[in-house]
Amino acid sequence: MIVVMQQHCSDEAIENVQIFLKNHGLSGNLSRGAELTVIGVLGAVGPSGTRTSVGGINPSIGDALEGLPGVERILIVSKPYKLASREFHPENTIVDVPSACVAGGVVHIGGESIVMMAGPCTVESEKQLMITAEAVRKQGAVILRGGAFKPSTSPYGFRGMGEDGLKLLARARDEFGMAVITEVMTPTDVDMVCEYADILQIGTRNMQNYMLLDAVGKVKKPAVLKRGMSATFEEWLLAAEYILSQGNPNVILCERGIRTFEKMTRNTMDISAIPMIKRLSHLPIISDPSQGTGHRDLVTPLSLASIAAGTDALLIEVHPNPDEALKDGAQSLTIDQFRQLMPKAEAVAGAVGRNLIMA
Amino acid sequence: MIVVMQQHCSDEAIENVQIFLKNHGLSGNLSRGAELTVIGVLGAVGPSGTRTSVGGINPSIGDALEGLPGVERILIVSKPYKLASREFHPENTIVDVPSACVAGGVVHIGGESIVMMAGPCTVESEKQLMITAEAVRKQGAVILRGGAFKPSTSPYGFRGMGEDGLKLLARARDEFGMAVITEVMTPTDVDMVCEYADILQIGTRNMQNYMLLDAVGKVKKPAVLKRGMSATFEEWLLAAEYILSQGNPNVILCERGIRTFEKMTRNTMDISAIPMIKRLSHLPIISDPSQGTGHRDLVTPLSLASIAAGTDALLIEVHPNPDEALKDGAQSLTIDQFRQLMPKAEAVAGAVGRNLIMA
Amino acid sequence: MIVVMQQHCSDEAIENVQIFLKNHGLSGNLSRGAELTVIGVLGAVGPSGTRTSVGGINPSIGDALEGLPGVERILIVSKPYKLASREFHPENTIVDVPSACVAGGVVHIGGESIVMMAGPCTVESEKQLMITAEAVRKQGAVILRGGAFKPSTSPYGFRGMGEDGLKLLARARDEFGMAVITEVMTPTDVDMVCEYADILQIGTRNMQNYMLLDAVGKVKKPAVLKRGMSATFEEWLLAAEYILSQGNPNVILCERGIRTFEKMTRNTMDISAIPMIKRLSHLPIISDPSQGTGHRDLVTPLSLASIAAGTDALLIEVHPNPDEALKDGAQSLTIDQFRQLMPKAEAVAGAVGRNLIMA
Amino acid sequence: MIVVMQQHCSDEAIENVQIFLKNHGLSGNLSRGAELTVIGVLGAVGPSGTRTSVGGINPSIGDALEGLPGVERILIVSKPYKLASREFHPENTIVDVPSACVAGGVVHIGGESIVMMAGPCTVESEKQLMITAEAVRKQGAVILRGGAFKPSTSPYGFRGMGEDGLKLLARARDEFGMAVITEVMTPTDVDMVCEYADILQIGTRNMQNYMLLDAVGKVKKPAVLKRGMSATFEEWLLAAEYILSQGNPNVILCERGIRTFEKMTRNTMDISAIPMIKRLSHLPIISDPSQGTGHRDLVTPLSLASIAAGTDALLIEVHPNPDEALKDGAQSLTIDQFRQLMPKAEAVAGAVGRNLIMA
Repeated sequence: MIVVMQQHCSDEAIENVQIFLKNHGLSGNLSRGAELTVIGVLGAVGPSGTRTSVGGINPSIGDALEGLPGVERILIVSKPYKLASREFHPENTIVDVPSACVAGGVVHIGGESIVMMAGPCTVESEKQLMITAEAVRKQGAVILRGGAFKPSTSPYGFRGMGEDGLKLLARARDEFGMAVITEVMTPTDVDMVCEYADILQIGTRNMQNYMLLDAVGKVKKPAVLKRGMSATFEEWLLAAEYILSQGNPNVILCERGIRTFEKMTRNTMDISAIPMIKRLSHLPIISDPSQGTGHRDLVTPLSLASIAAGTDALLIEVHPNPDEALKDGAQSLTIDQFRQLMPKAEAVAGAVGRNLIMA
Repeated sequence: MIVVMQQHCSDEAIENVQIFLKNHGLSGNLSRGAELTVIGVLGAVGPSGTRTSVGGINPSIGDALEGLPGVERILIVSKPYKLASREFHPENTIVDVPSACVAGGVVHIGGESIVMMAGPCTVESEKQLMITAEAVRKQGAVILRGGAFKPSTSPYGFRGMGEDGLKLLARARDEFGMAVITEVMTPTDVDMVCEYADILQIGTRNMQNYMLLDAVGKVKKPAVLKRGMSATFEEWLLAAEYILSQGNPNVILCERGIRTFEKMTRNTMDISAIPMIKRLSHLPIISDPSQGTGHRDLVTPLSLASIAAGTDALLIEVHPNPDEALKDGAQSLTIDQFRQLMPKAEAVAGAVGRNLIMA
Repeated sequence: MIVVMQQHCSDEAIENVQIFLKNHGLSGNLSRGAELTVIGVLGAVGPSGTRTSVGGINPSIGDALEGLPGVERILIVSKPYKLASREFHPENTIVDVPSACVAGGVVHIGGESIVMMAGPCTVESEKQLMITAEAVRKQGAVILRGGAFKPSTSPYGFRGMGEDGLKLLARARDEFGMAVITEVMTPTDVDMVCEYADILQIGTRNMQNYMLLDAVGKVKKPAVLKRGMSATFEEWLLAAEYILSQGNPNVILCERGIRTFEKMTRNTMDISAIPMIKRLSHLPIISDPSQGTGHRDLVTPLSLASIAAGTDALLIEVHPNPDEALKDGAQSLTIDQFRQLMPKAEAVAGAVGRNLIMA
Repeated sequence: MIVVMQQHCSDEAIENVQIFLKNHGLSGNLSRGAELTVIGVLGAVGPSGTRTSVGGINPSIGDALEGLPGVERILIVSKPYKLASREFHPENTIVDVPSACVAGGVVHIGGESIVMMAGPCTVESEKQLMITAEAVRKQGAVILRGGAFKPSTSPYGFRGMGEDGLKLLARARDEFGMAVITEVMTPTDVDMVCEYADILQIGTRNMQNYMLLDAVGKVKKPAVLKRGMSATFEEWLLAAEYILSQGNPNVILCERGIRTFEKMTRNTMDISAIPMIKRLSHLPIISDPSQGTGHRDLVTPLSLASIAAGTDALLIEVHPNPDEALKDGAQSLTIDQFRQLMPKAEAVAGAVGRNLIMA
């Protein structure tokens, strides 16, 4: 943490900051220049009451410092997340998911091979789910996606089949040997969703639902954490840190587009998140071009772009009859479009020295 | 809903849309011009399965239409919220909060008078709370704010005193006769928070925590719904609709700043939200210039601006010693600064033909 | 400037940075902590080739440093603008504009009194301009606004009357004694616009049209510099610095709303810009609630909010018949609405201890 | 254009809109539903005064309508650009650039082959330019980039070598047979830059510098139009329309990242712009991952992602010694990094059925 003082601040103001730091068990290193006075606060450990569990400075100390007389601003230089950082864990984390349809019975997310997760946005009926699961499995998808609990901007929209949807997903897993990923929206549902699913998904609106993050952190299930729709990388990694710090190491980050001024696309996929998260963190990073674009026509080019940029998996919405979908039909691929995507995805994966895990 | 067709779309594509509409119990009104073909879908009521509870078009139908061949885009022209709209309820809603410190024992939020809510960001100790409550009460605040459950971007930050904090708030209410507003973060806590608080607060990160909105909708307690940090007015009113549609009519909206590119202020207060929400909705709208700016020095000018623009209440963070605050010290007024704010607030209220309710 | 090194960087990387700094005539102050290594670069003056005219560090040095091995990031701690900063010029700048309609013949912008600038968005005809000028003058406006050169998002939109419009503005000035403010869009027009206008206006799209800024800096005319539609305070003050550094001290900043996700308002007025710019800079700051909101109904509340927050002037669009306006009719007040605004503006100005200059 | 009336608007208000339309030579088609009243305005041609050159509705009419009593909002359904639209010109536009280093002497931008444009951000010296040009030419780049006029956020930053820089670029062209692309910042420089350059570049800050767009439209030189840093696709295509409507058909669009909340990357590259612009327009679309990311390490993954998504060309900053660059060193590839990029780019191009033009 660095305290930047106002240019013409008084000696008293500087001393006041030093006293404040001392009172909080910290020490400051004063550098006074012709144009600038800064106080560096390094290697800090707070007093017992404020000491954080990773030994960093209590964030509220920065806030308080910012309000002291003569203080221009506070620069936080150390990363506020630790368990999620590449420094803490230099090797890539590989999350293992049991999946009967692959050799060895386990899919590795975050390794050399790219994983295809596909299925309907929302579970609507047994028929719809089974047709889709069979079709995507046949093309090589190894993980089945499908929402049973759906966040809806309007209270009058379809909110999913709930536990009945989960049961259908489990049935599809049994039949096709695919692992299942599905969303959990509230802490009290975590145990129930864990019974049926292989991967928990935390949606964009819940990225900062801290009690849900805590609850998911307390189970060991792999969890896909979607980026909040206007979250920065740092906020996203701090949300991952919530889960990690509760003891669940199996966190997978998912870029699903951020909100920008552009309204023709539902969101703007931040493809640079893929290499940047790889640099900042050891966690796997995957892409959701369906939510990320909102347009069926854009799903294929953005899937290929994600692979070229280094994604570890794709999460694709597929519907046997998108025009009749109860939710997000415009962004779902048809089964035929998904079939066409697969060889292109393989070709681009090959071009960047990777391959697709095939069921 | 209006379906805009691509410029050179085929007759078949148009017919296809008409058939789709018919299959969903809707009818389309075709207007074919030299440059433009549109199909208007008016006064729509979906078939039994898709009919929404307010008689509108199921939002997923728009999604599905958007994916049909030849469709350029879908324009939604009717407001997706109903109970929150000014059309549905032309008169201002006034939310009554019991408060022993005012004549009549009830504070009206949304009426002629402007309400001052003040107190610490976070309840830290009995002493801190009682000193602050007494001080703000003495200056005329009638509602006491204070967080017992605190959302923290970092898992290592202070997350509040929990139920112990709620008990302190209740004690302060008993002693000073002020109503109490405090945050609730998860559905399972709603009943507990209701026991102690007079107004529930839903924070910015939880604006789209739908299960929390449902739970708050099932109690009758007044609820302050903060605007999501990148939410539009429509999304915010839809979140209010969640609460209203569960049967709780006592919803108060709170502008607390939105995320913009400007990093010198914590958020950017959207003062235009005040008159715009008044136009769109009958619900009271209040302002939080502490969260809205993040800077103590900006709280007074933005409080006055809020009053000039028509706010129904102010929610102000005050701390007896902000430099020692465990959270958000930089944006808390000192007791002395709050004392100076009050006569200015009264003067501006008077200039726009209103007054401040005084304890 | 502070160089933050990666956590596990090598000694060689640190030395490399030190050598780089030395080669550029700078020296670094190394602080090595348990969790963090930073190198502070203070009081810096570059070598002759890179030395900047205000003695700061050449910004490109930061860029180059950011690319060196082991460097995590660069923090720029000194303000990149100087002439625009409050530190450089602690007293408020007051810009004087000759205006026959006030006592003394000069309007002071940035002083105790608030200045009302009003008139049509665009000069459309002699009749329209004269009717409007007479009406706003009668209500107390002392400066006449009106566009002769208009930026239009579409090449097919109305782009203004050009020099004919300027002549009409000059005629209105002669008749009503009001000073005239009008936009200049390109360097080669600066001299011509100076002939007719008392204040040059630089529009939001041209905030970073550096050659225009240079050209306006070379004349002494007062210049209103509108905030770019997604500009930060720092970028805005750097644009002002362009004008100031060419020798024109008469710069007035104008908040006109920024682009946000909200589409119901044309822009989102950042009222916090008013007190924040006052803190960062000595330059006058004014408000344009017409562009800032895009809605006639919001102009009055946002005008009053601007005054409550400390604005030095208002720039208001008024049209005798807004429904027939060639441009931006929806955001223009009628003459009657403007008449109603004035006493409210005076009342709020009085409430914050200021007054309105009246013609 | 569709006029949406307020829900409980009076018959008089509806009639008033109809009269307004009639007065402007338009006719409205009223649809009155239970919940909604809309007036469709189709196939419109304004009266002589307001008729636009492409036969659309004068945009100011929409503005004026929006201000009429009882009007809720105006929906513009036809695209405001015409010459840039795919409907107007269904075939891809291919822009030909003379380039001695390829077979046939012409590089086609927008065709099957992908074009590599590379070179320094800024021309700094003959030596720097020649070394870079030779190196990138050797690796297969066919177009040389380099800035002689540089926009700088600070007036104290390096603003380029001006005409001397242009002369060096021309010399490099003569020596290595590469076409040259360079920025033009103001209308009066267009002729001079045309003398030296093969492609004019219009920077992000000048996307809405309309007089510059007009000037570039009056020459036939190919022009790369960078996306404004917070521009929508529509605004960008309207800027292209400025150039096209002046008679220059050789417009190339360039995605260079947009401003988002993420500060770790300089901008956020909107890869979805590539397929979306291809759908909306016939113009070539190219990518600038150097500006788009601001980080050397991200240039390669985002280059590959751009190719996977369908880009027509890449614009890459390369510097022989980026740590000594006068501008944007952190985002420039070293010559060695560029050498490594080329075979990867070829591989991904091959995977999507395209190839790289090689010098």
